[in-house]
Amino acid sequence: MTNLYGIDARSGERLEPPVPETTPEEAGQRCAAADRAAPALAALPLGARAWMLEAVAAGLDAVADELIPLTDTETALGRATLEAELARTTDQLHLLAKEVRRPDFLGGRTETGPDGTPSFHRTLLPVGPVAVYAASNFPYALAVAGSDTAAALAAGCPVVVKAHPGHPLTSRRIGDIVTAALRDAGAPDGTFCVVHGMAAGQALITDPHIKAASFTGSQGGGRALFDAAASRPDPIPFYGELGSVNPVFITRAAASARRAEIVSGFVTAATRYVGQLCTNPGLLFLPAGHGLEDALATELSSIPAAPLLNQRILEGFRQGTQRLTEAAEPLVATADGPHLFRTTVKDFLERPELTEECFGPATVLVAYDDEAELPAAARRLPGSLTATLHAEPSDAGLAGQLLAVLTRKAGRVVWNGWPTGVAVNRTMHHGGPWPATTAAAYTSIGTESVRRFQVPVTFQGLPEELLPAVLKA
Amino acid sequence: MTNLYGIDARSGERLEPPVPETTPEEAGQRCAAADRAAPALAALPLGARAWMLEAVAAGLDAVADELIPLTDTETALGRATLEAELARTTDQLHLLAKEVRRPDFLGGRTETGPDGTPSFHRTLLPVGPVAVYAASNFPYALAVAGSDTAAALAAGCPVVVKAHPGHPLTSRRIGDIVTAALRDAGAPDGTFCVVHGMAAGQALITDPHIKAASFTGSQGGGRALFDAAASRPDPIPFYGELGSVNPVFITRAAASARRAEIVSGFVTAATRYVGQLCTNPGLLFLPAGHGLEDALATELSSIPAAPLLNQRILEGFRQGTQRLTEAAEPLVATADGPHLFRTTVKDFLERPELTEECFGPATVLVAYDDEAELPAAARRLPGSLTATLHAEPSDAGLAGQLLAVLTRKAGRVVWNGWPTGVAVNRTMHHGGPWPATTAAAYTSIGTESVRRFQVPVTFQGLPEELLPAVLKA
Repeated sequence: MTNLYGIDARSGERLEPPVPETTPEEAGQRCAAADRAAPALAALPLGARAWMLEAVAAGLDAVADELIPLTDTETALGRATLEAELARTTDQLHLLAKEVRRPDFLGGRTETGPDGTPSFHRTLLPVGPVAVYAASNFPYALAVAGSDTAAALAAGCPVVVKAHPGHPLTSRRIGDIVTAALRDAGAPDGTFCVVHGMAAGQALITDPHIKAASFTGSQGGGRALFDAAASRPDPIPFYGELGSVNPVFITRAAASARRAEIVSGFVTAATRYVGQLCTNPGLLFLPAGHGLEDALATELSSIPAAPLLNQRILEGFRQGTQRLTEAAEPLVATADGPHLFRTTVKDFLERPELTEECFGPATVLVAYDDEAELPAAARRLPGSLTATLHAEPSDAGLAGQLLAVLTRKAGRVVWNGWPTGVAVNRTMHHGGPWPATTAAAYTSIGTESVRRFQVPVTFQGLPEELLPAVLKA
Repeated sequence: MTNLYGIDARSGERLEPPVPETTPEEAGQRCAAADRAAPALAALPLGARAWMLEAVAAGLDAVADELIPLTDTETALGRATLEAELARTTDQLHLLAKEVRRPDFLGGRTETGPDGTPSFHRTLLPVGPVAVYAASNFPYALAVAGSDTAAALAAGCPVVVKAHPGHPLTSRRIGDIVTAALRDAGAPDGTFCVVHGMAAGQALITDPHIKAASFTGSQGGGRALFDAAASRPDPIPFYGELGSVNPVFITRAAASARRAEIVSGFVTAATRYVGQLCTNPGLLFLPAGHGLEDALATELSSIPAAPLLNQRILEGFRQGTQRLTEAAEPLVATADGPHLFRTTVKDFLERPELTEECFGPATVLVAYDDEAELPAAARRLPGSLTATLHAEPSDAGLAGQLLAVLTRKAGRVVWNGWPTGVAVNRTMHHGGPWPATTAAAYTSIGTESVRRFQVPVTFQGLPEELLPAVLKA
């Protein structure tokens, strides 16, 4: 048996006790148990399904004081950040519980034809057992009890979570809480479990009982899992959120009208979660010769380095900043801390490596001489989760041109704000064209995230009393 | 330049004039033109989009008398069948036009937070240029101006159709009609085109301008295109409808109560379109020793052979019936015509080759001794577009057990009816788990088919006057 260890993100020391890796055989048994649980879970009344989500939230709330210090040790995110994240995590469980109770949650549609022709009823049913690959950067909100798990349970699907190795002790503890809460709330055995280790993670994606998978993480890891899901004898949907440069455009008028606000807003956004956000602004287009670059550099250089989540992310950040140092001019280069680079639109158009995400607190400023350069630069952008435009009412023409391009490049378009701080609500789309996600039509955050784990079924001529139990409760 | 020829499906003779194959270079130019058309098409008011669909329908209606004989020569489907299919094709264009005009068509959702926080607006925008791979068996309804094209245009996407080689003259004629109708209705240049030949078809799926693809056809061809779509540097969604055995279960009580109705209903369903339907009932579970097998065999053997769509389908049908002859007992074996086979549940469970689709007029009867054998047999079924149950009120227990399994196996569950004759409406789900489709959450028929070609975008804090033009019209 191989053990995983949590690591103190500040000291690098190994934490006790160890967490045993799950073998591929054990992972297969968990998937089979999830498959056995699926029909009973699907048949529960929607009220019971909503109550399960609330029970998980209550379970997390009850252990917050014990959990937060443990997670802080494993991630160095700080207690205040983790308190806010835990609140978001329980909030999203409550939001989905509320969604499950909405009368239109199953999208039911009935159509009755003329006499003698059958009636049709269309509804959304759970796809089956779901594999959730947890993220490292949100140890609560995008991990074991995070938005993917909440969405899959809301859809009525059993969940097998692959824990992120960056916080195994937190993952195990939350796994125990969720398992107990679901059991107490009446979920069938096999509804939920956590597996640890890469071998188990690889086993999930090709397991015949798994019917969909979700993932938040790196482009390399996500692509490998996407390819495995697509190569199955029976391909399954793989909802991966892989990375995003989140371009921000500042017009000349905006830079003049709101310079101080833009400087402080940028620095807050770029250093939140130590820059370890999928919505971190990685590219910022601004007017050359306006003094904005210097102001941003001055403000950012006052932010000290803070520990990154783990050694793998630190190494990736060092490689990424090295790559950018070779492609652009470094303005700020705090050792293992905030980085700011500068280039011109001309160089940006010639260097595709500047459009690759560098995960962590690093941003490339792209200085333009003429706003007319911006639409062409926007067309060269890869798909992103977000695109942001800072502009003034006098910019209507330019804004219209840029928005037309950015709307095809990103799943969320932000006006005079910052892309970080994703709102969890009924209108959020957290997705975008490749490489932001593997499935641009789906969101991983907000109530619509449930749709990833539902499939429609149409019942033709079926007597009402024989419709699935969930429709009658 | 290579030429394709239409073939007279009854005589096997080559038809004039030839249709030139599209080269991969030409196909790439058409995709680039579609990409250039995309923003202007997306910006048109929804009323204009609806009008385009109606203009295409009017264009088809206007040439019906000339079109139907040509298609009948190429497909041997018969004029009455083709008249009905053309009516369905124009009906679905009108239905989608109506859907586009619904106030909730773009799924718009607005959320305004407390003072000082941004408002959010979520809407559905076109994914971009779509490649449509036309089917052979519905030369109107699932081909050049068929449901995929209608759905993509309704979503606001330019369309590049790969014509099916089984009816090139029909495809070219309809392509000309659609192109002219769209131009006259105000669609931008590049909105629509048809390409011919396998090389062009292969070029489409990896073309960087194509953002989604749809397909109706064989499992082999569909899988190859799915794999190509998934292997792109930027994977795109591939909505393939690949084939289905459409199991039908007859309880003992139903066989007693409605024997004559079941016999005639089955024979009608199994021979419609000469059995060349994706919803053709390929497996029928019935009580042994009830005389139903003999009655079905007698009735089916009275149906003469009719020409299949083309030589490739005839060869596939010969191979499929040969495979079934080796695995089950032939009851009817009309040369190149209706086939009926018989096996037992025990043999069915041991021979997975009996669950593979044989495209054409062939059905395997699976005789059971005890109804208690049926749930286990149902669990062994592959994913299908449909699953059908014939039962009586006294069967409630068995029906409940079977429906619980069948609901996980098929996208449409039919009660005391037959799976053929797909209704085109707002409640239809024409999809199902692999191998029925490559994307079980989507339908290729009915109003929800448009969802395949839309992606959500959330606008955060954007002033109303800067929202996309389509939202304001």
